[in-house]
Amino acid sequence: MREPKKSNENSRLTRGEARTRLLDAAMMVIREQGYAASTVDDICRAAGVTKGAFFHHFASKEELAVAAADHFAAMADGIFSVAPYRSLPRARDRVIGYVRFRQAIMSGALAEYTCLLGTMVQEAYDSHPVIRTACDRHMSDHARMVQRDIEAAIAEEGLHPQWSAESLAFHTQAVIQGSFIFAKAKHGAAIAHGNLDHLINYLECLFPTKKP
Amino acid sequence: MREPKKSNENSRLTRGEARTRLLDAAMMVIREQGYAASTVDDICRAAGVTKGAFFHHFASKEELAVAAADHFAAMADGIFSVAPYRSLPRARDRVIGYVRFRQAIMSGALAEYTCLLGTMVQEAYDSHPVIRTACDRHMSDHARMVQRDIEAAIAEEGLHPQWSAESLAFHTQAVIQGSFIFAKAKHGAAIAHGNLDHLINYLECLFPTKKP
Repeated sequence: MREPKKSNENSRLTRGEARTRLLDAAMMVIREQGYAASTVDDICRAAGVTKGAFFHHFASKEELAVAAADHFAAMADGIFSVAPYRSLPRARDRVIGYVRFRQAIMSGALAEYTCLLGTMVQEAYDSHPVIRTACDRHMSDHARMVQRDIEAAIAEEGLHPQWSAESLAFHTQAVIQGSFIFAKAKHGAAIAHGNLDHLINYLECLFPTKKP
Repeated sequence: MREPKKSNENSRLTRGEARTRLLDAAMMVIREQGYAASTVDDICRAAGVTKGAFFHHFASKEELAVAAADHFAAMADGIFSVAPYRSLPRARDRVIGYVRFRQAIMSGALAEYTCLLGTMVQEAYDSHPVIRTACDRHMSDHARMVQRDIEAAIAEEGLHPQWSAESLAFHTQAVIQGSFIFAKAKHGAAIAHGNLDHLINYLECLFPTKKP
């Protein structure tokens, strides 16, 4: 996230800049303190924009949250589409490479590597249906990206598994989401890294190194 | 949870009854709408007790949250200590039986089967250190219960794994916590059940039916 400028510089921000700053700030502030605890004032302060600018762009905090979910997912799509593992020729290696990549980026401040979508849906699933729907859509789209490599790996390796590629893709996401909870509980990523080691071990069990 | 009585019956509640009702209500209300969004008024209303009674027992919502985490963990300990899988003679079967039991109890309303600890730590890990500490302690204690069966299974089956029993115990908990997030995102337990099928499949891969 860019350093927030002071609000007296507001007038020099274009509309698009103010909107992007609010989205970037929402991503950080909500990952730090949750959706309900994050006020519009908190987000404006972190973005370095006025409350007037906020309400020019968003009718409510809920509307910002949905836009922040879209923004977060677009940012993630950008990261994963150019990640080094994407260029591995064997689909089985891309499936495992994806998990290793997720493991590698679990470092630094918790609010920088945990998931905005999992954080928001955890508390707002019942009270804010539009937030739940946005989180579900983006989490499911991300799972489908993993699912495509799993489907290709099943075909390439000539497997006939008892499980579906979709179920395994969601399983990878559940391990990652649960790992974020333990990273938060422990204030550190060690347990989370161990969880992803087990997920890799499982994937290596399903997709052995040598073709069967 | 017992049906809340009307607040005009407050005077007939003993102090212990009012405290237990507040803890039961906190467990449900926080699992429904998250920690920050749950007000003391919401919890008093659900408990059917007055705000005066609340502040007789708890200095703050944060203090109630810590007590509710203890209450939730004690309730879970009670459930797991008498669960049918506990009487299986082979430790490997108890490890898998634990996951099947978790799967079986993932039904009904989301606020009834999701985890108070995972819900609270997700949003309050940074803003409320005492809540984080309570959630970490109880989640780690629960993992240790699973760890003891994993240690016994490793010994009984004569295995020499590359992974630690502790890391596998935390992995089971990450899958369960991540599954709750998908149950909330999807408003249903189907994906969560599929995730636990994969966890069982992994455990069967680590602990084959026949001793090696």
